[in-house]
Amino acid sequence: MSAPRFLTVETACAAAAEAAPWMAASTPADRAVLLEALADAIDAASADLVPIAGQESRLPEARLIGEVARTSGQLRLFAEVVREGSFLEVTVDHPRADLTPPRPDLRRCLAPLGPVAVFTASNFPFAFSTLGNDTASALAAGCPVVVKTHPGHPRLTEAVMAVADKALSAVGAPAGVLTAVGPALEVGVELIEDRRIGAVGFTGSARGGFALQQIAQNRAVPIPFYGELGSINPVFVTAAAAAERAGSIAAEYVASFTLGSGQFCTKPGLFVAPRSEGLRTALRSAVAAVTPAEMLNDTIRGAFVAGLGRLQEIDGVEVVHPGGVLDDAAVAPTLLAVPVSRLLEAEQLLEECFGPVSLVVEYEDEAALVDVARTVPGVLTATVIAQGGEPVLAPLIEVIRQRAGRVIWNGWPTGVAVTWAQHHGGPFPSTTNALHTSVGASAVRRFLRPVVWQGWPDELLPAAVQESNPWALPRRVDGVLETAST
Amino acid sequence: MSAPRFLTVETACAAAAEAAPWMAASTPADRAVLLEALADAIDAASADLVPIAGQESRLPEARLIGEVARTSGQLRLFAEVVREGSFLEVTVDHPRADLTPPRPDLRRCLAPLGPVAVFTASNFPFAFSTLGNDTASALAAGCPVVVKTHPGHPRLTEAVMAVADKALSAVGAPAGVLTAVGPALEVGVELIEDRRIGAVGFTGSARGGFALQQIAQNRAVPIPFYGELGSINPVFVTAAAAAERAGSIAAEYVASFTLGSGQFCTKPGLFVAPRSEGLRTALRSAVAAVTPAEMLNDTIRGAFVAGLGRLQEIDGVEVVHPGGVLDDAAVAPTLLAVPVSRLLEAEQLLEECFGPVSLVVEYEDEAALVDVARTVPGVLTATVIAQGGEPVLAPLIEVIRQRAGRVIWNGWPTGVAVTWAQHHGGPFPSTTNALHTSVGASAVRRFLRPVVWQGWPDELLPAAVQESNPWALPRRVDGVLETAST
Repeated sequence: MSAPRFLTVETACAAAAEAAPWMAASTPADRAVLLEALADAIDAASADLVPIAGQESRLPEARLIGEVARTSGQLRLFAEVVREGSFLEVTVDHPRADLTPPRPDLRRCLAPLGPVAVFTASNFPFAFSTLGNDTASALAAGCPVVVKTHPGHPRLTEAVMAVADKALSAVGAPAGVLTAVGPALEVGVELIEDRRIGAVGFTGSARGGFALQQIAQNRAVPIPFYGELGSINPVFVTAAAAAERAGSIAAEYVASFTLGSGQFCTKPGLFVAPRSEGLRTALRSAVAAVTPAEMLNDTIRGAFVAGLGRLQEIDGVEVVHPGGVLDDAAVAPTLLAVPVSRLLEAEQLLEECFGPVSLVVEYEDEAALVDVARTVPGVLTATVIAQGGEPVLAPLIEVIRQRAGRVIWNGWPTGVAVTWAQHHGGPFPSTTNALHTSVGASAVRRFLRPVVWQGWPDELLPAAVQESNPWALPRRVDGVLETAST
Repeated sequence: MSAPRFLTVETACAAAAEAAPWMAASTPADRAVLLEALADAIDAASADLVPIAGQESRLPEARLIGEVARTSGQLRLFAEVVREGSFLEVTVDHPRADLTPPRPDLRRCLAPLGPVAVFTASNFPFAFSTLGNDTASALAAGCPVVVKTHPGHPRLTEAVMAVADKALSAVGAPAGVLTAVGPALEVGVELIEDRRIGAVGFTGSARGGFALQQIAQNRAVPIPFYGELGSINPVFVTAAAAAERAGSIAAEYVASFTLGSGQFCTKPGLFVAPRSEGLRTALRSAVAAVTPAEMLNDTIRGAFVAGLGRLQEIDGVEVVHPGGVLDDAAVAPTLLAVPVSRLLEAEQLLEECFGPVSLVVEYEDEAALVDVARTVPGVLTATVIAQGGEPVLAPLIEVIRQRAGRVIWNGWPTGVAVTWAQHHGGPFPSTTNALHTSVGASAVRRFLRPVVWQGWPDELLPAAVQESNPWALPRRVDGVLETAST
């Protein structure tokens, strides 16, 4: 089998720059058609693509079939977002000659940043990859995309690109709207350094993300870098909840931290719960019931084994249920435990370990929930498992809302619903930019900047801000929000 | 007269951190009252404050009286913005048990980043200073503010803080809601490095801004740095416009670049126009008619004189009207000219020179307008002076909309209207973050980050996202935008 073929950075960026004016000039309706064409195309090619993804990622077929559906669903959500039109934030202030000084006519809307580099993730070969969230939201914003192929699934990227190329050409999009460059590290560096790139979307490790962010910041013209990195995703269990339903909590927690072999950025890595033999027993039996599964690749498995080793060496860490690599290379999940007092002293316990392991933090006094919450760094998610009415809830909620991008009540962080309200991001170090999200409708905002038009004759204005509102956009006029149907 | 007294960084940040929960918990209506109390207080103290501002900034009384009114107007606009409530971006998605996987209840809104450091500017001692745009928008967002006093007007900051303290205490705000630290450079560094600071607003020079941004980025926990720096603000004059109305164009341009002694970040520094003796004559007489005025302080005047010297030494630069420092320390405006061909070769001509000087770039062929537009770096504003119908307009507009934050038709960039639609920002290097603005309603967005609440019982949710919408906020429910009156 020959190696998959990709464009050079020079060719891809030249094509993207050439396609940028076409994308910027496209109407929201045009872009919705384009996104839906991609959604339909990947759905139609699912049966061809899933086996390639399976070979490269070792993920099971059912999961990958579901992931294709999620990916097309994401593309369709962004089609809905651009059709709805609020994302352009059109704001019109009519002139006021009666003011001192007189106020000119001002019309604001958002404009695309130009070609976006998308660094794909290995753990979602469809949903956070070639046609994933970053690509869908950048295209929705009106930006061409250059995909940096992940070394974990180059053949899949090549195959998805072939499907996408056909779909894009059928809707009349120029070739540079979506291109892919190779998986090598130096290709990624060259891509970020290319002067034609206007922003970067990244999903991956903190280490890789921060290194690439430096490159984006040190360019002659720095560009925004949106890195969705990792997170320990603490779960806080009250004593009353553990007393009432230890069995179901244990089963759900274990299902969540072992889902996809623990290779999710929302994996619950910390489970703060009362010290109780009953809960331990329930946890042990839930972990023992999990079928070991292969990790994405040997590099990731190697990093997991090393990280697991480091965790187990930390003073006070106890193995509740041992796991590890089996003869067939599948990995059985590991559950560790530590008393609260040790966690508060050992910062290394708060570092994400990507893979099927989680740490139970056991307390004697429920007030420790708040102490632990104060200790965790910025996280993507924080979860409360409670009965309701516990006095610890008010102070606990007050702390976690400041530390997390998503706060969850009696649910689990894995499974990020792709909706208008979703926010997938969080305070540093879980992302490089807590103001923005990589999942959900508002992800488009990352790739847009405001432009205001002052005093222009209507016929020279972009359609989005013309007085007659030809695109029927929701907009704010003289301070009053008007929906399309107003 | 004793030196003005300010808090230490430690005291100010401790107070701000203590006030942060109070601010975060305040309702939009509470914050509107707080902003209006500040607006009323500074209006009432105008007669006392203006003389202090005049002594420290050398700006004329009428201008300073107008600036106080602008400052209170800004505070009132942000009160209107928080009362209206869209700034919270409330988005509700109800649960959907029928989907695979089932979708949980998700409720997103924006939350304050915590204490904000505001680095004030010298050129607007009221409107971009202690109670200026950055302070008003941070308070509106629910963030306490620590003001870094500008060395250009420490006594004014002390006096404004006394007025603000009284107003804030009258509405029951804790002392840490607004504090000020001293003017020394090292105080500013210490402030940005303080772990309790969540974001920085800065208005000033590119050099100072980039240095401070580095500090914000290199913290153990990096924070957003919003620097509104400087810009050459090109004006593009078509041949037809110059032929039709050279006199009025010349008069308006000269009024704009000499306003406030050229000490505005929106000063038109480049005037691209047809080479014509008639236009030159009109420009010369307009410049000659300007009354020389003092610059803000000796340091700024020194930098201006040095910058002017550097410009005049550049090969091809001609002095159309000489100016400079007079015996009484007032500065007469200088007008320089250069052929287009020289501008395209000499990058130094595109650097901002803060003060009463501007450069006329003379063309023979109108197509040069587009060439120059392609050469300018990112700018706050770009202006077109035209009759309408010129063929050069389409390509010119296409280029400037990609280079500028505000594009102006037959108007002038100075005088930044403070409205819902305003955008005061632009691509690098005019600001450090082209996605955000320091003037206008959306300036609050800089100090807010999204949080999504998943699956919570209504009574544990913040009021902003409760099902009954107790604050009557505009919000998006299941994808549909609902205005407060819907």
